[in-house]
Amino acid sequence: MRVSTAQNDEQLAELGQQLRVDAVRAADAAGSGHPTSSMSAADIAAVLLARHLHYDFDRPEHPGNDRLVLSKGHASPLLYALYRAAGAIDTAEMLTFRTRDSRLEGHPTPRLPWVDVATGSLGQGLPVGVGMALAGKRLDHAPYRVWVLCGDSEMAEGSVWEAVEHAAYEHLDNLTLIVDVNRLGQRGPTRHGRDLEAYARRLEAFGWHTLRIDGHDTAAIDAALADAAATTGRPTAVVAGTAKGRGVAAVEDQEGRHGKPLPDAEEAVAELGGVRDARITAAPPHEAPRRPARTPGTPDLPRYEEGDEVATRTAYGRALAALGAARPDVVVLDAEVGDSTRAEYFEKEHPDRYFQCYIAEQQLVGAAVGMAARGWNPYACTFAAFLTRAHDFVRMAAVSGVPLKLAGSHAGVSIGEDGPSQMGLEDLAMFRAVPGSTVLYPCDAPQTARLVAAAADLPGIVYLRTTRSDTPVLYGPDEEFPVGGSKVLHSSSRDRATVVAAGITVHESLEAARILEREGISVRVVDAYSVKPVDTATLQRAADETGCLITVEDHRLEGGLGDAVAEAFADGRPVPRLVRLGVRGVPGSATGAEQLHAAGIDAESVAAAVRLLVAEAMVSP
Amino acid sequence: MRVSTAQNDEQLAELGQQLRVDAVRAADAAGSGHPTSSMSAADIAAVLLARHLHYDFDRPEHPGNDRLVLSKGHASPLLYALYRAAGAIDTAEMLTFRTRDSRLEGHPTPRLPWVDVATGSLGQGLPVGVGMALAGKRLDHAPYRVWVLCGDSEMAEGSVWEAVEHAAYEHLDNLTLIVDVNRLGQRGPTRHGRDLEAYARRLEAFGWHTLRIDGHDTAAIDAALADAAATTGRPTAVVAGTAKGRGVAAVEDQEGRHGKPLPDAEEAVAELGGVRDARITAAPPHEAPRRPARTPGTPDLPRYEEGDEVATRTAYGRALAALGAARPDVVVLDAEVGDSTRAEYFEKEHPDRYFQCYIAEQQLVGAAVGMAARGWNPYACTFAAFLTRAHDFVRMAAVSGVPLKLAGSHAGVSIGEDGPSQMGLEDLAMFRAVPGSTVLYPCDAPQTARLVAAAADLPGIVYLRTTRSDTPVLYGPDEEFPVGGSKVLHSSSRDRATVVAAGITVHESLEAARILEREGISVRVVDAYSVKPVDTATLQRAADETGCLITVEDHRLEGGLGDAVAEAFADGRPVPRLVRLGVRGVPGSATGAEQLHAAGIDAESVAAAVRLLVAEAMVSP
Repeated sequence: MRVSTAQNDEQLAELGQQLRVDAVRAADAAGSGHPTSSMSAADIAAVLLARHLHYDFDRPEHPGNDRLVLSKGHASPLLYALYRAAGAIDTAEMLTFRTRDSRLEGHPTPRLPWVDVATGSLGQGLPVGVGMALAGKRLDHAPYRVWVLCGDSEMAEGSVWEAVEHAAYEHLDNLTLIVDVNRLGQRGPTRHGRDLEAYARRLEAFGWHTLRIDGHDTAAIDAALADAAATTGRPTAVVAGTAKGRGVAAVEDQEGRHGKPLPDAEEAVAELGGVRDARITAAPPHEAPRRPARTPGTPDLPRYEEGDEVATRTAYGRALAALGAARPDVVVLDAEVGDSTRAEYFEKEHPDRYFQCYIAEQQLVGAAVGMAARGWNPYACTFAAFLTRAHDFVRMAAVSGVPLKLAGSHAGVSIGEDGPSQMGLEDLAMFRAVPGSTVLYPCDAPQTARLVAAAADLPGIVYLRTTRSDTPVLYGPDEEFPVGGSKVLHSSSRDRATVVAAGITVHESLEAARILEREGISVRVVDAYSVKPVDTATLQRAADETGCLITVEDHRLEGGLGDAVAEAFADGRPVPRLVRLGVRGVPGSATGAEQLHAAGIDAESVAAAVRLLVAEAMVSP
Repeated sequence: MRVSTAQNDEQLAELGQQLRVDAVRAADAAGSGHPTSSMSAADIAAVLLARHLHYDFDRPEHPGNDRLVLSKGHASPLLYALYRAAGAIDTAEMLTFRTRDSRLEGHPTPRLPWVDVATGSLGQGLPVGVGMALAGKRLDHAPYRVWVLCGDSEMAEGSVWEAVEHAAYEHLDNLTLIVDVNRLGQRGPTRHGRDLEAYARRLEAFGWHTLRIDGHDTAAIDAALADAAATTGRPTAVVAGTAKGRGVAAVEDQEGRHGKPLPDAEEAVAELGGVRDARITAAPPHEAPRRPARTPGTPDLPRYEEGDEVATRTAYGRALAALGAARPDVVVLDAEVGDSTRAEYFEKEHPDRYFQCYIAEQQLVGAAVGMAARGWNPYACTFAAFLTRAHDFVRMAAVSGVPLKLAGSHAGVSIGEDGPSQMGLEDLAMFRAVPGSTVLYPCDAPQTARLVAAAADLPGIVYLRTTRSDTPVLYGPDEEFPVGGSKVLHSSSRDRATVVAAGITVHESLEAARILEREGISVRVVDAYSVKPVDTATLQRAADETGCLITVEDHRLEGGLGDAVAEAFADGRPVPRLVRLGVRGVPGSATGAEQLHAAGIDAESVAAAVRLLVAEAMVSP
């Protein structure tokens, strides 16, 4: 399965030295970076590039290119040295490493066209690689291979083992993991040091084909990668024993040399045999089927009648199934709760595009990121509460810039008896703080359906929050809900306050408005279904016209709707009086209605807050 | 090692039936809950209670009590049935299950004195159990055992494997994991179904002593638990094959029966042999050393001179070491970055209370929660960015109500060249949304030292945010920094705006004030080191006196200091004009100074914002 023998073993060793020299030079120019972590894996990278990687660096978008994921992203100098050896960048650019505006960041990001996903938070490369390999096998039906190079320290991350399990279960023989066991972590020896067996035994137990090699023996590396490519029915792990800082006596296999340039780069380059300029053309891309043109159709969304009682999670699942029929690019990932999130509606109609990740939320999001990086349009779904498990993966997905839909069900205290462990109460705060994110929180079935469909074409991270219990249909089937908009559901020229709500609290707020109306107090009710971006214009108009705003959310007081509304007035203009109602403290078990009342976000509580505010407004102008 | 033979096998089987009956009754009374997941583990629970658990239910605080962690928290009816069998609760209370104000919540929480930590987010029981077992071995030096009962589905969570690795590495022979392999998850079969070998092989590969048993054979359970207690040098896993809904033909081993009461509870109780009222006295607590009285001393904190340049992370590490000398209850946990967070200063002086968790942030926090539940005072430290990895553990720690200190270093874009993967930019949003949390963000060394010491006595989740780069000392060594306070660092009667900053932006804001002063514009500068609770009084005074507030933070615009300041005005009173400066978009690599400038949060940017706001204030009153 070796694709080229153009380089003999000696030439491969020379290439390894070239990569080392370049890593040393790049870090030296930057005055920071990780040359020693690059040097341990240089021979692996050399053999991979020269003999096994199918990649056209001039056409990174080619569907038959292999994928290379540098999970140990701090070893970016090695990756950039490889790019130079492949002719993708020149020496001058390589030496811009870590400087402002350079594409060659401290840790790789997709600013470089050959980088699919950002790395640097350890333990994410394999989960994402599994997503790519799943895409290759089950979606693209293309023979590209996914090569993941990871460090030994990151094998302590649970996310790696979620991915190891997932890859074996899905028989991903198009996936190869290379573990660079260089024995030394950041602050000293790793847990298992040089014990290759420790890693191999674990990987084998999970069902992987596993090889142990000397990671500096180019012939052994070559044979192992060939073996990996030839192995069918299961993924292969190559556990490679290496030395950190290999090739330079002043740092090789020594503690205290992590994450810093070499003490004397010039001397190190000389010791490594000097600068080399070998140029390697990787093997050509695999023949891959041309992707079917994916002209997105218009989904035939389910229609609901006013007065129907439908949970937004149910509307979510039904809309997703309809979207899947209209758009072949949409794929859905589940963390073994598809009957709760209602993602199962999609599974029933489109089982070929449904991925069961079991209860492994990091892997759920990691796999979705990998599929998004391969051009698919993933919706990953679990309870809102359990998406917190994947916070770091979401954070890194935003750095990668991939489009990714995440749906969290069972939002808020309104879920009732299950109690706080199952309640999504921090999710809005988490997703609002993601750069470039969109945060949508529908209150009824037609709105949910429209937002599910609209999300498909949005860039970046899109979060959809759904409710467990049934809620009445408020909107007609043809109502539109632009992202960044809101709906004024109740208003008059006599409004003395504005209640801003989203999701389940829209219904409570409408009820509060009816209660207050009977008392002669008119209030405006705004359905802020787009929590980010929030509808600044409507909120500012409401502020001008009614003087004060009350936000009501089934979420913690911090970071959610209340903060989003406050942010609408953070441009220096006059700010209305603001009051926020939201969840404080830790709820217990109770019915949904009892929970809303105890949290002070039910209709009675909203009405009480308005009364107080309106009374205060009379005394203090 | 069996502690009692008072029950013969038949009596044990009867006790198992009693637990099943009670689980069925509790869920039936509630109209919700998980009886079938309880029934699969009933025989295990019966044998554990009657023969192996050392526990005085009248003295849950006894230092010699074993710990029982129900990681599969949804099987709470089983736990409450066990409590009834132990005489800890009566039938009437058991039937309050899941009702408002009942201690018997849908998932167990420490509202019950026999529950150490809240469960219900799967995959957390073992990580926390490892923390307890570590406390038993290395801190309490007490012979109590930690028993963790988990489900098969949750074995897919990576956090479980972080804990499996940690437990084996630490030779925790005082820890037993019982895996209830009932084959069925929430939505259908689990990944491995009845394949006990799949679990056992993996656990053995990680170094665990592993037993496979029929989880309904009381003699086999008894022998396995005795074997576990007798095994030295490594933890034991009992992989128990069971049937979900065991004992009631209408539901046993059937799909679609997850998480709901039995269709006919009365018939089910009859089929199980009717209500029983056996009362079991567990074995007495182990003899355990009395904890040394831990009168907290006053730490001899390092002193700094004004003008010194010291990174707050360094001040953090030094203060931690000093705190450790004064307080024997303080323990520190590291995720293999102690040289970066400076936790290594503590390690050097107090190696016996330093716990290396390697790169496994969920385990880092899980272990800390376990130690906190045992009465220790843990400080867990890693990069702020990587604490997002443990978001769900932090969330559940808040539900548990344990006191827990979390310190995140390398906050913000100011870290410089390493780029976005390493920057903590979402951490304030994450920690502000934790119920009852305290969020502290010091700007200099003396302030850091004081806050590290003050944190030791705070309840709940305390977050400390530190900066990578050196910053000048602003405060004298005797200055005090009450939680909830702030410091006005620059002010006059002519202030036309207030800049609210924290951490590194305090220094930028002071420089901005000096620049503006030269232009004849006076601004107030507030150091809001206590981000939560925020100093509402000082902010309101600043608003009254200067009319507008500008927040500046090395954090995303959402959820951080800007939101905290806005929240200070969310009580309905008049709100000042507000402007927020913070990080938008995804940074690249650059120097720290370049990063601060690019993000628009350096001195020049602050000055520019003030100029604009002051000019606007002149035209629009």
